[in-house]
Amino acid sequence: MGREIERRFLVCDSRFLDGRTGERIVQGYVAKESGAMTTRVRIRADRAFLALTGPRQGLGRDEFEYPIPVDDAWQILSDYCGGRIVEKTRYNVAYADHLFEEDVFAGRNAGLVIAEVELAHEAQPLILPTWIGEEVTLNKRFGNFSLAQFEGPTLPEDRRRPKGPVPTRHLQAMH
Amino acid sequence: MGREIERRFLVCDSRFLDGRTGERIVQGYVAKESGAMTTRVRIRADRAFLALTGPRQGLGRDEFEYPIPVDDAWQILSDYCGGRIVEKTRYNVAYADHLFEEDVFAGRNAGLVIAEVELAHEAQPLILPTWIGEEVTLNKRFGNFSLAQFEGPTLPEDRRRPKGPVPTRHLQAMH
Repeated sequence: MGREIERRFLVCDSRFLDGRTGERIVQGYVAKESGAMTTRVRIRADRAFLALTGPRQGLGRDEFEYPIPVDDAWQILSDYCGGRIVEKTRYNVAYADHLFEEDVFAGRNAGLVIAEVELAHEAQPLILPTWIGEEVTLNKRFGNFSLAQFEGPTLPEDRRRPKGPVPTRHLQAMH
Repeated sequence: MGREIERRFLVCDSRFLDGRTGERIVQGYVAKESGAMTTRVRIRADRAFLALTGPRQGLGRDEFEYPIPVDDAWQILSDYCGGRIVEKTRYNVAYADHLFEEDVFAGRNAGLVIAEVELAHEAQPLILPTWIGEEVTLNKRFGNFSLAQFEGPTLPEDRRRPKGPVPTRHLQAMH
C-alpha cells in the first residue's frame, strides 16, 4: 500500500514533448460508489495493474496497486468498464528536483495534457516549469474518473470488438 | 480469470461438521454498483485475495482473483469496507463426486450455514446429501454481498480498533 500525495496541473504548451518516447496507457473503472474506493484496471505498455484508490483527503489518497495478467485486464476493460475508459500516453519529464508525469490524452479527451507530480509531503515546495498552467488537483472535472466517463467508443480502435456475430475463425482460435 | 458455475444451498443440519477443521474467512466489499463488478477482499487463513466478480448470468459469473499481502487486506477491510464484512468458517466436504464448500457464518449471520458446489457446466447432475436444504443460488438475500450488509460491528473482535483515542503505545509501535 502507498499513500500518494500529488498535485495535478493543466499543461499549456506540450510542444517540448515532441520527439520524446512515451508509454501508452489504457485504463478503465470497474465500479465506483461515491465516497468509496475506486477499482481501476490499467494497462501500461505491456504490463497491467489492478488498483484500489481511496477518496482524496487533501492532496493525498491511499492507493493499493497489484500487477495482473494483461489478458485479464483487456477482458475486464472490454466486458466490465462500460464507457469508462481513458487512453493516454505518459511521458516522464524531470524538472528541477521533480518528476512530472505528463499525460497526453487521446480519444474524446484529445487535446488535453495533464502533468502530475508526486510530493513527499503536502507542504513540499514545487518549482514549476513555464509550460505548467492551471492547477487542477482538487478539480474533479479533471480527475481520471471524470475523464473516463463518456458515451463514445469504449476501447481503443485496435481492441474494439467487431460489430455483429463474432467470426467463426475467432471462436476456433480460442479453443 | 475463471468462470464460476456454482449452486448454493442452505444447510439444514450441520452437526456432521463437528470436530472437522475449517478455515476462517473474513471478507469485505469495497465498492458495489448495480450491474457492475463487485470488488471483494478476502482473508482466508493466512492468505489474502482481491477479487473482481461480474454479475451473475444464470448459474455462472466471471471471477478474477489475485493474491495480495495480508496487511493490505486488513487495512482495506478496516478503512474501506464500512459495515460490509462477512466472517465465516469454511469446511470442505466431499460427497459423491462433488466438493461442497460449507460456510458456517459468524457475527450477525451466526446460525446460517450455506453449502456451495462448483459445477463443470450448468446442466451437471448433482447428488445431494441429506443435510442439504433449500436451494438459494438465485436468491439474492443469501448472496455474499447481501450477507455482508449490516450496521453492526464491522470487523472480527480481535481486529477491531479500540474506541476513543489510539493509545500512545500503539502509535509508537507503528513508527
